[in-house]
Amino acid sequence: MKIVILGGVAAGAKAAAKSRRLLPDAQIDIYTDDTHVSYSGCGLPYYIEGNFEDYRMLLVRSPEEFEAQGIHVHLQHRAVKIISESKQVLIYDMVNQHGFLINYDKLIIATGASSIVPPIPNVNLPNVFTLRKVEDGIAIKEKALRSKNAVIVGGGYIGLELLEALVKQNLHVTVLEYSPHIMPIFDEDMSTLILEQLMQHSNGRYKILASEIISEFSGDMTGVRAVRTTSGLDIPADFVILCTGAKPNSEIALDAGITLGVHNAIKVNERMETNIPDIYACGDCVEKTLVISGTKIWTPLGSVANKEGRCAAMNACGFEDTFPGVLASAVTRCLGLIMSMTGLTEKYAKQQGFNPVSATVTKYDKVGYMPDVNNITLKLIADADSGRLLGAQAVGVGDADKRINIFASALLGKLTVEDFLAHDLTYSPPFSPTIDPLLNAAQILTSKIKALP
Amino acid sequence: MKIVILGGVAAGAKAAAKSRRLLPDAQIDIYTDDTHVSYSGCGLPYYIEGNFEDYRMLLVRSPEEFEAQGIHVHLQHRAVKIISESKQVLIYDMVNQHGFLINYDKLIIATGASSIVPPIPNVNLPNVFTLRKVEDGIAIKEKALRSKNAVIVGGGYIGLELLEALVKQNLHVTVLEYSPHIMPIFDEDMSTLILEQLMQHSNGRYKILASEIISEFSGDMTGVRAVRTTSGLDIPADFVILCTGAKPNSEIALDAGITLGVHNAIKVNERMETNIPDIYACGDCVEKTLVISGTKIWTPLGSVANKEGRCAAMNACGFEDTFPGVLASAVTRCLGLIMSMTGLTEKYAKQQGFNPVSATVTKYDKVGYMPDVNNITLKLIADADSGRLLGAQAVGVGDADKRINIFASALLGKLTVEDFLAHDLTYSPPFSPTIDPLLNAAQILTSKIKALP
Repeated sequence: MKIVILGGVAAGAKAAAKSRRLLPDAQIDIYTDDTHVSYSGCGLPYYIEGNFEDYRMLLVRSPEEFEAQGIHVHLQHRAVKIISESKQVLIYDMVNQHGFLINYDKLIIATGASSIVPPIPNVNLPNVFTLRKVEDGIAIKEKALRSKNAVIVGGGYIGLELLEALVKQNLHVTVLEYSPHIMPIFDEDMSTLILEQLMQHSNGRYKILASEIISEFSGDMTGVRAVRTTSGLDIPADFVILCTGAKPNSEIALDAGITLGVHNAIKVNERMETNIPDIYACGDCVEKTLVISGTKIWTPLGSVANKEGRCAAMNACGFEDTFPGVLASAVTRCLGLIMSMTGLTEKYAKQQGFNPVSATVTKYDKVGYMPDVNNITLKLIADADSGRLLGAQAVGVGDADKRINIFASALLGKLTVEDFLAHDLTYSPPFSPTIDPLLNAAQILTSKIKALP
Repeated sequence: MKIVILGGVAAGAKAAAKSRRLLPDAQIDIYTDDTHVSYSGCGLPYYIEGNFEDYRMLLVRSPEEFEAQGIHVHLQHRAVKIISESKQVLIYDMVNQHGFLINYDKLIIATGASSIVPPIPNVNLPNVFTLRKVEDGIAIKEKALRSKNAVIVGGGYIGLELLEALVKQNLHVTVLEYSPHIMPIFDEDMSTLILEQLMQHSNGRYKILASEIISEFSGDMTGVRAVRTTSGLDIPADFVILCTGAKPNSEIALDAGITLGVHNAIKVNERMETNIPDIYACGDCVEKTLVISGTKIWTPLGSVANKEGRCAAMNACGFEDTFPGVLASAVTRCLGLIMSMTGLTEKYAKQQGFNPVSATVTKYDKVGYMPDVNNITLKLIADADSGRLLGAQAVGVGDADKRINIFASALLGKLTVEDFLAHDLTYSPPFSPTIDPLLNAAQILTSKIKALP
């Protein structure tokens, strides 16, 4: 049995390790164009921030550790073409610069995603970075430690994580967001709140500017010097990081006749099978099913990639497993502010044909007399027709993440808002107010739904 | 409409406030033998610890604020007898020392609970305290600030909260627990872990001794001096706090012909009605329904009292509301260690006729390279026959409380362990590992159940 895995960051590494446990005698090979395997891409901003000095902390398992388990890791070996008829893959050895064919019995595509580079004039100047791989993180940190001014393009998750990282490294940072709202994956009222909260403590150390379109990067062959916007800004920049989204690495799949779905991500079923026999796909290169609505979305995330890698390996190795989909749960932190969400936003719920009603509360995260009490703002969304919970968003210096995960569990249980009102959450002054903000919000939401004609 | 409420700490205060909102014209009276109304009893250990200086931070709403809403608060007025036939209550004015009769249309009993004072020789010596009311907290803090040695009798929730409080006030503290395990509400393996973890960082500042039975308190009319145990210990003590449990204040209900349930707590239905028409009961004086098994338990807790007070008021005022019961969710913190649980323990699940299987994992609470990473130990319990989740316990310096609340939501949704495996929890390095410990434990539990004959 020959199992070939294309890509080895999260889904690919997990699929390899799981396959080894399931089939001790199988031949398992990982081919990747990367110079590293099995690392925490999500940890790169925290490395740049200085939470730890050695980038090798990001490496989960080394090629040597894989070899010791009989998993062969081929770094800097790019998969060029899949020939499904003969169950072969054309591999290109990037170091020795030659191609060769390998055979597979089961093929697992885990090629991940790439940063989108927007077509801005001079975007290829030195010191205009994207952040995806370990060497990107190393280069950015090295540059940050001897710079004064940085510009981050894009105010989503990665953009804000890098804002925190660079501010902590004492840089002056400007975040430029093209759309009218930062964190545009949230509902607009919550995005507005995020911007307000982040700017409250900036003290001039950083700026976050929405609705700013970059006209060009200026500089010379030694590097970028400034970022110009169509509104007339000319912002000095020792370096720039593009955080303008990602796209699935699915070209090789498309070329092989594998069906793609939303955002050109690879279409798979619950068993992580593509439309071609014996070819599985998992991780950031595949589309996801949003279990609440059954719709297809693309939300690349390390935790999901791990689960999909496990599921793909189970089925490829002849066992049975299914991965039902995601709730689109996510969290990040920027300079003490926690932003978290799960399920559908109000905006997206409307688009999906629901009749959403929402309730938003701002409350203490613990009892008011505790010294470290902080506010959180919670927005809960339910379907007015069925009462069913649809999604939640939380923003605050207080413990916002906890509440979103509690709510995610309720989504998994397909609870209505009235079911949720019966919740018995732990209570003690250091952990929550007597009535948790989740229950305050659920109560208001219940009243709102009852008051509807 | 005359609404009379007996007791005004959590359930009573909430019932009064809710009744006022529902019926603006009703006459609402609170009678209590206490010198304070509407306060956070759970906050007393944090006041003693020195988290805040003014005990008035514990007061949620003053008698004057109630009066401004037309709710009459009668402090130091003890309810002595309920005459349900004539819908009257005999009240004793403790200050002016005289009794009088009042009439009610609806009566809400929210008399709370009292500390159990064990029959130990010399238990009535000065400086042997219990902690229940505001004045208890004031007296203990005052004594603590000018003492060196303290003994806490009982190693449950309140005992450990007071251990933290007194250690933070630089006292030498000894906790004496009668049973073989501290935190005996947890399964024994988790109780053992709690003791180990707490003792790891004691540095001689405190002792926690299980299986110690007190033979007597010694001292004189100026106060307690030492605590003697049957094992021969003679522990110097400037003061002692008895944390040996509580009992519901249900004598007046029993005397009136109201049916009592487990632990002599008042029996109520989902509408918080007693067996006597127009008499409701709520808060620490009533028994609770454990929704997982339908069994009756008694777990006095401020958060539950609030919800029951609200429900009692709704029904007393002529509206419809039900309180389905509790999951027995609880959390506390002692010197950085978080202990939390929800649902059934393995021991209790067996007693209730389930066929429990458990899985315990010790894992990081966030990604290992984050500077504030800590361990948590999680124990998940499911029924082997149905796969249904039954309960969870968590202990650790890391974020244990979050995981228990996520699990509580799953209990509310009646999920099986396989349902739970499909969970999509938020992931980002500062908040959890790529695979949350909850999912690690659920995976092991699934395998264990599958491996059963």
